[in-house]
Amino acid sequence: MQALQDSPLPNIPVSQNPKVVIIGAGFAGLKLARSLNKKKFQVILLDKNNYHQFQPLFYQVATAGLEPSAISFPLRKIFHHSKNVIFRMAEVHEVDSEKKRVITNLGFLEYDYLVLAMGADSNFFGNKSIEAYSSPMKTVSEALYIRNKIISNYERAINIEKPENRRSLMNVVIVGGGPTGVELAGAVAELRNNVLPIDYPELSFKNMKVVLIEAGENLLGPMSAEARQKAKDYLEKLGVEVRLKTLVKDYDGKSVRLENEETIETETLLWAAGIKPNKIKGLHEEIYTKNGRIHVNEYSEINGMKDVFALGDISLLQEEKYPSGHPQVAQVALQQAAQLAKNLPKIERGEKPSPFHYRDLGSMATVGRKLAVVDLPFVKFQGLLAWLTWLFVHLMAILGVKNRLFIFLDWSWNYLSFDPSLRLLIKPKYVRESERAELIEQK
Amino acid sequence: MQALQDSPLPNIPVSQNPKVVIIGAGFAGLKLARSLNKKKFQVILLDKNNYHQFQPLFYQVATAGLEPSAISFPLRKIFHHSKNVIFRMAEVHEVDSEKKRVITNLGFLEYDYLVLAMGADSNFFGNKSIEAYSSPMKTVSEALYIRNKIISNYERAINIEKPENRRSLMNVVIVGGGPTGVELAGAVAELRNNVLPIDYPELSFKNMKVVLIEAGENLLGPMSAEARQKAKDYLEKLGVEVRLKTLVKDYDGKSVRLENEETIETETLLWAAGIKPNKIKGLHEEIYTKNGRIHVNEYSEINGMKDVFALGDISLLQEEKYPSGHPQVAQVALQQAAQLAKNLPKIERGEKPSPFHYRDLGSMATVGRKLAVVDLPFVKFQGLLAWLTWLFVHLMAILGVKNRLFIFLDWSWNYLSFDPSLRLLIKPKYVRESERAELIEQK
Repeated sequence: MQALQDSPLPNIPVSQNPKVVIIGAGFAGLKLARSLNKKKFQVILLDKNNYHQFQPLFYQVATAGLEPSAISFPLRKIFHHSKNVIFRMAEVHEVDSEKKRVITNLGFLEYDYLVLAMGADSNFFGNKSIEAYSSPMKTVSEALYIRNKIISNYERAINIEKPENRRSLMNVVIVGGGPTGVELAGAVAELRNNVLPIDYPELSFKNMKVVLIEAGENLLGPMSAEARQKAKDYLEKLGVEVRLKTLVKDYDGKSVRLENEETIETETLLWAAGIKPNKIKGLHEEIYTKNGRIHVNEYSEINGMKDVFALGDISLLQEEKYPSGHPQVAQVALQQAAQLAKNLPKIERGEKPSPFHYRDLGSMATVGRKLAVVDLPFVKFQGLLAWLTWLFVHLMAILGVKNRLFIFLDWSWNYLSFDPSLRLLIKPKYVRESERAELIEQK
Repeated sequence: MQALQDSPLPNIPVSQNPKVVIIGAGFAGLKLARSLNKKKFQVILLDKNNYHQFQPLFYQVATAGLEPSAISFPLRKIFHHSKNVIFRMAEVHEVDSEKKRVITNLGFLEYDYLVLAMGADSNFFGNKSIEAYSSPMKTVSEALYIRNKIISNYERAINIEKPENRRSLMNVVIVGGGPTGVELAGAVAELRNNVLPIDYPELSFKNMKVVLIEAGENLLGPMSAEARQKAKDYLEKLGVEVRLKTLVKDYDGKSVRLENEETIETETLLWAAGIKPNKIKGLHEEIYTKNGRIHVNEYSEINGMKDVFALGDISLLQEEKYPSGHPQVAQVALQQAAQLAKNLPKIERGEKPSPFHYRDLGSMATVGRKLAVVDLPFVKFQGLLAWLTWLFVHLMAILGVKNRLFIFLDWSWNYLSFDPSLRLLIKPKYVRESERAELIEQK
């Protein structure tokens, strides 16, 4: 550690402009970096991946509808024409707010302004078994892992003679009735209805269960009553078993145990039950709320710190309309980042920044073909029109003309063919790494 | 092993038709299975992957031009409408030709006709160091691994202060002057010329070497003198250092040592220097040639065996025009498979099968934008027209309308933008596997 704290991150161009270091290239961090393009700041964007991930479509990667590359954007490419924005693929170890430094795995970086936008990871609520055996979906890698897991399980199931022994490989259980859980459950059900029986004619699918488990009284908690009810109806129409007010107690990799001691056999437990903000070392404990969010003021500045901001899922601002903080969604992150991009030049000039107010543009979730629910501020609708709205809004949110075009074509193709075609078990050959170790020993 | 030899592979539908077991879904195996569609055979196709790989375009996956899914075809999807063709993802351990059985990791399978089409893997000519440290490209996984490796190396290089210490991360050395080596070298040079300097403005590219090493006197050995010369000219025009009559002696992961003791620093040694046929246990040693190919007669039947055939890269048939066997290329594999598909019904009816004669349709290789060489039986040409011919022929060889359309769009996009955009370091999160082990221990 000593070495990293003492050696600066190399090859950062010298600049007279104030340095903004942004940790995390999710919705908030990326939006801020893009909005500071050509402004009088040197922006250094750090992320542990070399791409931005478009989280709302992870479930389509997991269910073989889209390629990871369709919804992942190489950060260097995004900033090709932004001379004042520098990207480094790095892991951040610690913040030293006294020295105004960020310590990464590659050395330290000095900042004038620091923006924390590390987002959130899956929350297993302390259950180590569930963490060990379930499949979360907070990264595109994890989404791809889910896809590979479902396909592998079916390739295994087909070689098992007795139908009762195949059950745990065929059933899919999803925990969490938020948009992610609802969208995953719908997409898995559509795979079961349209694709898997043709791929595996030897298997009987009438006993394959797709179960969606939610602890609360409703799916899509924060949405309107109509949306919640319709989403449930749609899922049930697709054959999903929706279990409300149901708590998962434990999971051993083969069978989910519920609070009432009922068990459901499955090797595929998809975990979308909750998130917890990513932490970073070096900040005072008192800035955190009980659930790990960071208290910020209306300028997104961390309470009690100077020139250090927090955006998106990790931040917590109590507005009058949102006494327990804003929802942890992309819209909030994007609006906070846009606001901060406007405020930073003011702060730099010594002017008073403008306070942040969240403007709720509405929310939506899709369940399946022609099945979605949309709540806009003044109108709520469901079904085909909602589905088209969902498609349009998500397509427009996708970065880059090429990705937008390819996703549009993929969607059109899948719509017409009922056949998302990416059912490939491809992995970069890391296997070779272990073979290599052996070979090196043999030498 | 005992258990597998004694338990049949489960869930194979009962059929009155003779059973054809095909090992390997490469060009030969896939072509044969498709040609036997709706014929009076039960066809069981085995492969260790659940997809067919289109080898001629691996180099575009390696150089971020195409996604693996664009050139990989889920086998179950290919055979959706072929009721008599059954696919199993399996590894074949052994052939028992006395009992007419194939033993796989899932149990044994009985056959009436057995077709070996396992293809070939990289040949390191016994050098364990090269095998341990170089990157071969005989699977789409390996191609993806090369892509990830090149990008990782650049992400590392950018954090190294002294230019002389970055060299081994930036240089790329390709060994083998066949089509694969030539195409890789050209594509890497184009990345260097068009993409990498924009992605990594902090690095200086004038010292980045792309070296193509070939042991023989020419690139593209079996092609015409014009093609060989032009390919070399094109590569040199793109800035590739072509080293003919040069032997690689050793490689330690950091630096390639040539026979004259000269060294070239590189962490990226791409190995396309030779292939060796995949072997299978249980066959007599005398069927193999010195370099591991299997002697077959003009009906592709293995010499000295009954009802066992070998196709493609693993087979060796001495025709008058090809005294040392046919070249190990897709064309031969496809033609052999087509011939065998016609012969099997004849053999089954007790008629005399037709002998195989290879019809050389020509060969081609591409070096870069508008740069390719084509030898057809009656005409040879190079440059733009050759490049268009290459594009057209490869596009038409791609299975499936969707893949063809998407590759066409990808190519058009890359052509117009000079910017293959798939520079993502995405891996299915196998990392979690090790985290999991830890978590399970903690419990």
